[in-house]
Amino acid sequence: MDKVLKEITPKSSDFSQWYVDVIRKADMVDYAPMKGFMVMKPYSYRIWEFIQEAMDRRFKETGHENAYFPLLIPEHLLAKEAEHIEGFSAEVAWVTMGGREVLPERLAVRPTSETIIGAMYSQWIHSYRDLPVLINQWANVLRWEKATRPFLRTTEFLWQEGHTVHRTADEALRETLQQLEIYREVIEEYLAIPVIQGVKSAGERFAGAVDTYTLESLMGDGRALQTATSHFLGQHFSKAFDIQFLDEDGVLKYGWTTSWGSSTRMIGALIMVHGDDKGLRLPPKVAPIQVVIVPIGRGEDREKVLAHARDLAASLTAIARVKLDDRDEFTPGYKFNDWEMRGVPLRIEIGPKDMAKNQVMIARRDTGEKISVAESDLLTKVPELLNAVQDELFRQAKEFQQSHSYAIANYQEMDQYGYRGFFRGDWCGSEECATRLKTETGITIRCLPFGESPVTGHCVVCDEPSQYRALFARAY
Amino acid sequence: MDKVLKEITPKSSDFSQWYVDVIRKADMVDYAPMKGFMVMKPYSYRIWEFIQEAMDRRFKETGHENAYFPLLIPEHLLAKEAEHIEGFSAEVAWVTMGGREVLPERLAVRPTSETIIGAMYSQWIHSYRDLPVLINQWANVLRWEKATRPFLRTTEFLWQEGHTVHRTADEALRETLQQLEIYREVIEEYLAIPVIQGVKSAGERFAGAVDTYTLESLMGDGRALQTATSHFLGQHFSKAFDIQFLDEDGVLKYGWTTSWGSSTRMIGALIMVHGDDKGLRLPPKVAPIQVVIVPIGRGEDREKVLAHARDLAASLTAIARVKLDDRDEFTPGYKFNDWEMRGVPLRIEIGPKDMAKNQVMIARRDTGEKISVAESDLLTKVPELLNAVQDELFRQAKEFQQSHSYAIANYQEMDQYGYRGFFRGDWCGSEECATRLKTETGITIRCLPFGESPVTGHCVVCDEPSQYRALFARAY
Ligand SMILES: [Zn+2]
Ligand SMILES: [Zn+2]
Repeated sequence: MDKVLKEITPKSSDFSQWYVDVIRKADMVDYAPMKGFMVMKPYSYRIWEFIQEAMDRRFKETGHENAYFPLLIPEHLLAKEAEHIEGFSAEVAWVTMGGREVLPERLAVRPTSETIIGAMYSQWIHSYRDLPVLINQWANVLRWEKATRPFLRTTEFLWQEGHTVHRTADEALRETLQQLEIYREVIEEYLAIPVIQGVKSAGERFAGAVDTYTLESLMGDGRALQTATSHFLGQHFSKAFDIQFLDEDGVLKYGWTTSWGSSTRMIGALIMVHGDDKGLRLPPKVAPIQVVIVPIGRGEDREKVLAHARDLAASLTAIARVKLDDRDEFTPGYKFNDWEMRGVPLRIEIGPKDMAKNQVMIARRDTGEKISVAESDLLTKVPELLNAVQDELFRQAKEFQQSHSYAIANYQEMDQYGYRGFFRGDWCGSEECATRLKTETGITIRCLPFGESPVTGHCVVCDEPSQYRALFARAY
Repeated sequence: MDKVLKEITPKSSDFSQWYVDVIRKADMVDYAPMKGFMVMKPYSYRIWEFIQEAMDRRFKETGHENAYFPLLIPEHLLAKEAEHIEGFSAEVAWVTMGGREVLPERLAVRPTSETIIGAMYSQWIHSYRDLPVLINQWANVLRWEKATRPFLRTTEFLWQEGHTVHRTADEALRETLQQLEIYREVIEEYLAIPVIQGVKSAGERFAGAVDTYTLESLMGDGRALQTATSHFLGQHFSKAFDIQFLDEDGVLKYGWTTSWGSSTRMIGALIMVHGDDKGLRLPPKVAPIQVVIVPIGRGEDREKVLAHARDLAASLTAIARVKLDDRDEFTPGYKFNDWEMRGVPLRIEIGPKDMAKNQVMIARRDTGEKISVAESDLLTKVPELLNAVQDELFRQAKEFQQSHSYAIANYQEMDQYGYRGFFRGDWCGSEECATRLKTETGITIRCLPFGESPVTGHCVVCDEPSQYRALFARAY
């Protein structure tokens, strides 16, 4: 019965090893034969599909259309926006040969697509009537990484990148924040991960952005993860790529652009926020299997119970994603562990005694609670319980985040918490203080959170009068 | 009013130029600044999304799951299956630098994924209980091409590739044919493109396959296009990649594998099969806009008609993908041409006189027919007409295919038809004849169609006794 569990490192003893153990044992990823690359197996890819569906519907509802731009970007294009190329040059993979010929100019495998999309937009946009341009792309991107960690830091990953052009700065800024709100909604309501919204400090901005807005979440080990970002690019890219339009007043003007992205990294957050020593705990809305049915019956009961379990599975299929585990080579105990490892929200156990009483036993993955339910109530009870699990996972994550959030007046106070958690404190606004903090403690400014009242205190690093309230944390 | 039309080359005078004109004017693609690459603009990408939805649903219904494998493949892996690397080596783009370092081994940007997937499968499959493995991937692939033609031949394209492993040859072959049938269904029922099903001759097989099954369609210029293929790979890849399983009888055996793919090429077929001198004609099931409403009214009528058109659009949105063209900078005539160019199946015209009679005029893009419809009938009439257009486009395409299909006894007979059309004739089975035919006439064997009665004639090339009935054509 402990066959599965025994191979997982407890979360509390080594979080990193626990993470790697869980994703392997839960059959989410495998390592490819090339360093830095991973395979997303069906169980994690299905989660990605649910995230895509939720995001894509909202993108379309807000007037965006999908398109597809080339994977390869000529070096001279990538270099057009100075800060951008500086930010990405160390991470780019280069195609230098096509077929049997050496290419005259090397081509970057896209690390992000602002440049190639900017080059196209400059040809598509002429008049104010062509605006806004609201396009999103679902794509793979490459960033050459030294250290790799599945979902969090891999050379290749899947994401969506939105790229829009607007007539005014105000409209572009509204777009930036609207998309951030879509991310918040999907991440909180589907992934059940609470977020802190804010704007990045200058040192943490996207390369080429005027402002980067971010969602920050607290992982189970007290480190922060940036789950999605939305960038107000001002006119940086429109000037670099000559994206101009003739306005209604007859004046030629540069467009105001935004970009916003979210990636398979969110699946890493999902694991680290909800997982426990038994493995994954998946929020029902993104769980590939919402309900697993495990028949329990030996000898002459076996077939009878199995046939009944099949009927149950068939009736529940209309209201949930159901899997009947009819494998005969494993014991019920082994199966319990196996599906707990994979984070299935509800397990229905059915044996001869349950059958006699026309009831089943339902076990919740989030709380471990076991509930006896009459079969006649299943079609109403299962959706109720799925909602309850969804809510409870969010509640637990929110509680964890709150109980690991600390107000600090001086950065040395973070020491007593082992530098783990969300720390709110004042910051003078100088990059020197940010750098000193990072060097001494590994802590970075995650964001300047929205909704903070005017700041009148002193910087947690230098004790000079502060300009901002900041959210500090060690980050992935 | 002719502003749009005037820029398109007539289909009959230069089909190739017509094709390029249409895709540009209908806003489907743009050329990227790198030779061989194109951008799929929202209007064509949306069509791809409808194709994806139709295919993906059927893949899932037949037990397949999606996954994602790495973009880059180490050279030694790509080279493991001898015929495979020979078939693809001239077309591969190579990544030789990552970040600032030269890589120890160059990495191929995937031209197809049999090799990397085979390497993973060999690690995932141990027992007969692990079979079948039924996985599909939606991805981009690169094949370095000299000549390029949007959708038909570009360096990068989007596709899906299914890769499955089975316990027996028979099961693998059934899978191969089941997937071919899914392609047929989607291509005929969604894209309204009739297909001929068959098996490829040895010389036209996928590199590394035992048998390649194909769907061949006839384009508007009488050339053939392969719209999708499904490969029975036998044990070629399982032996090259050591995909073995312990069978129930205790014997270690090699798996039987298949792969099957379809790509954005289908959009090229869609254009070439249905398009006419006015532009695209889109089958309603894959049309981003199914109904366009053009209000007609000047002066004081303008606002009144527009308001009414808005109400109509709102009520129709529940049953169709509707667009109201309320642009005030264009005349109705210009708009008619514009939406005909984009292939919108139905156009609803509404003016003051129609309003007075509580009716609208509906123009069909497929036949040009104009029908007066009472507003109270719209919610039933519009879906009826959309179905009618879908059926009519298929009927026209089928009729075209049939009227351009010829039985031949000798290959010289093709000359009188300008080598355009589907030619059915006998083949002795020798590659020499196939090569001679190709060299002399540019004609290739598209497939050996299913359902032909036993062949007792003589080869159309060498006049020796024939082995096969073949479908001959010039192909894209
Ligand atoms: Zn300071
Ligand atoms: Zn012959």
